[in-house]
Amino acid sequence: MANAMFQSLPGFRDFLPRDFAIRQYLHETWRGVARSHGFVEYETPLLEDTELYLKKSGGELSSQLFRFDDQGGRNVTLRPEVTASLARLAATHQRDFPKPLKWFEIGQCFRYEKPQKGRGREFFQFNVDVLGEAGVAADAELLAVAITTMLSLGFVAGDFRVRVSDRNAWSEYAARMGVMEDRLAEFLQIVDKLERERAEVLEEKLASLGLSLAGVKEFIGNPENASAMYRELYADLKARGLAEYLEWDLSIVRGLAYYTGMVFEVFDARGEMRAVAGGGRYDRLIATMSGGKVDLPATGFAMGDYVIRNLIEETPHALMAMEKWLGKNAAACEVYVVVDREEDRAEALAVVTKLRLARISVDFPLNAVKFPKQMQRAEQCKARIAVIVKAGEKELRVKILSSRSDVTILADDVVTGVRNLLDRPDESLMA
Amino acid sequence: MANAMFQSLPGFRDFLPRDFAIRQYLHETWRGVARSHGFVEYETPLLEDTELYLKKSGGELSSQLFRFDDQGGRNVTLRPEVTASLARLAATHQRDFPKPLKWFEIGQCFRYEKPQKGRGREFFQFNVDVLGEAGVAADAELLAVAITTMLSLGFVAGDFRVRVSDRNAWSEYAARMGVMEDRLAEFLQIVDKLERERAEVLEEKLASLGLSLAGVKEFIGNPENASAMYRELYADLKARGLAEYLEWDLSIVRGLAYYTGMVFEVFDARGEMRAVAGGGRYDRLIATMSGGKVDLPATGFAMGDYVIRNLIEETPHALMAMEKWLGKNAAACEVYVVVDREEDRAEALAVVTKLRLARISVDFPLNAVKFPKQMQRAEQCKARIAVIVKAGEKELRVKILSSRSDVTILADDVVTGVRNLLDRPDESLMA
Repeated sequence: MANAMFQSLPGFRDFLPRDFAIRQYLHETWRGVARSHGFVEYETPLLEDTELYLKKSGGELSSQLFRFDDQGGRNVTLRPEVTASLARLAATHQRDFPKPLKWFEIGQCFRYEKPQKGRGREFFQFNVDVLGEAGVAADAELLAVAITTMLSLGFVAGDFRVRVSDRNAWSEYAARMGVMEDRLAEFLQIVDKLERERAEVLEEKLASLGLSLAGVKEFIGNPENASAMYRELYADLKARGLAEYLEWDLSIVRGLAYYTGMVFEVFDARGEMRAVAGGGRYDRLIATMSGGKVDLPATGFAMGDYVIRNLIEETPHALMAMEKWLGKNAAACEVYVVVDREEDRAEALAVVTKLRLARISVDFPLNAVKFPKQMQRAEQCKARIAVIVKAGEKELRVKILSSRSDVTILADDVVTGVRNLLDRPDESLMA
Repeated sequence: MANAMFQSLPGFRDFLPRDFAIRQYLHETWRGVARSHGFVEYETPLLEDTELYLKKSGGELSSQLFRFDDQGGRNVTLRPEVTASLARLAATHQRDFPKPLKWFEIGQCFRYEKPQKGRGREFFQFNVDVLGEAGVAADAELLAVAITTMLSLGFVAGDFRVRVSDRNAWSEYAARMGVMEDRLAEFLQIVDKLERERAEVLEEKLASLGLSLAGVKEFIGNPENASAMYRELYADLKARGLAEYLEWDLSIVRGLAYYTGMVFEVFDARGEMRAVAGGGRYDRLIATMSGGKVDLPATGFAMGDYVIRNLIEETPHALMAMEKWLGKNAAACEVYVVVDREEDRAEALAVVTKLRLARISVDFPLNAVKFPKQMQRAEQCKARIAVIVKAGEKELRVKILSSRSDVTILADDVVTGVRNLLDRPDESLMA
């Protein structure tokens, strides 16, 4: 803008009503899927002691932190992710809950990155975790949430793949090939960059560990190398009817150091193979974060709101599912009350209030407006019906906006009359 | 805690599942009431250019800001309130929307204050605003939202009062008494402190303006001084059946400098007369914030989550309404699927998945657990029914947990069977 008006900070979104409704669609879908899987919601603070993040990640995110000294001289950080806080919470409160804890959080996170398509300086993240259960069944439960989330957003089999790997398969390979345990993290970093780094660089790095690129690629390429953990996971998801989305893929290792065992990523299979969600086991993190005081096995994943929104908007059937939800849930009102003449206003206000107290969403003109203009406003706010109030009449005229047809309801029982009309599907309203 | 485990920052809340559910109760009630009144939801960023807040408030909140330089050298602030951002948003985008804009936001705000009962360093605020309508009808619409919010939270007439005043009545009084216009803000500050400051101090300050405490108190005490604006507002709310909660009270002026015209506060009438919500007209703020480029009359109010939660917990009928909601909406699952023997697990996983895809909330044991322990888990997660899966059976046994009675459903159509049971009210399940 050429003028001096205030603007939002780079990478920070203003959620105007339509953007907010799309955000609600994502959040309500996430929430609905997690709750249907028996997960309960929690939320940790947006601001935490900076040490919490440094301890967890060993500095992996530290260059991207919104970090500062507060007025009390504490060094604090706007959360870049929520797993560190969850580990803190679980270490402190786990004794109060039966195991396993099946918990989810939908929260905003902040990272100082270069804003670009698919990435801002704030984003919402759906975090799903099972704490206190070491068995593969917990990992399967997690993958069921991830897959059902994609299906609930309108995606189908060809749209996405869940690529699963096992860090233990890699540590066994490394041990078999004579890589010392203290160089395992370094080795996993190399595998993580297999698709992004030049072959010569990879070859050189692997050689320093006594390995070859061809050997590593052969290990990845052989489906016989699927671990026992994966076979169990596959059988579990097959019993659920959800195995068709799975793929064993050793090239997935996930960058972060704290993963143990199963790791996975959900990929956009049609387009640019972007990762939509990812996670895995982190059996030692809570012990590390609590100084060894609490030891809880854990497995979890996160899905951000940027990539998935782009993917929905690029996938016609997912977009249609979203638009259908928006049509039902994002209208400014269901009923528009028309004030026929100004002397009908008091009566109209009474009708408006009765409907609202029954939790029906109602709008009406705040000042004197001509009839056609009121009908236009009813359409703008996407009302399904317009109730025309005339003081003293026993019956009120109601316009069905989809068909522009008229019906009447009893003024004495306007709530029942309106509810009956709204309960009909739009098709029958049109008839 | 005596050990070295991490803790949350002072004044910042961890929302464990029960606290989160209470927070959801408040947010969903706020959202439901606002939407029933034809308001649409938006949200502005948590972090803004510090200048935005300094410009709006003239420094009123500046000592309480979480303010810092980001990595790009911008001076930024965690929002202490949302009206400044709304003014920015409205100035930039108002042309894209028909007037009036009826918008609401439920957002977290941050102030560096001493944490105490009823106040933390973060809090959620329900903000409701009407932009682009100068008439009293907009103020009435706002009060209708405030009152209906209290009623929807289970409060009744004796629990709260809505005290309404009019800054214009005070500016007229001041003009009549010869107070110069440039000292009006100073005068309003004195009136704002009438109930908190010692009489001698007030007397001295008023004398410097050529006024007396007795005169000011007489003006406040005379109900004949209700302004024409208030009479119109009262008539509007009377037509809505909501006037009984209103009270004309000139002692309400609201501290912030930018209010014009109507101001109000919702008070706890039984207990300590705490303000639960407050707001008023701010017809010049958007013009100020946009450097005169956009001029939109506006009226709005905010309700925080601390005082209202305390008030609910101290008011038995409001507490009962909340517990009823929590009972319906905060259970970890509706259905517990019991895995009778481990050889039934694959069949159980299929049943679990069918129910979940139908958006029924289901939990089940992730590993081998004895039958009585599974029933105990079903109760812990507050399931209403437990479905006992035996592979190969045509009928599945279902335990109704409230009555501990048994019924059977067809294994072939488990979703319909379960849904029919859940659709019955708990009373009939008990029969």
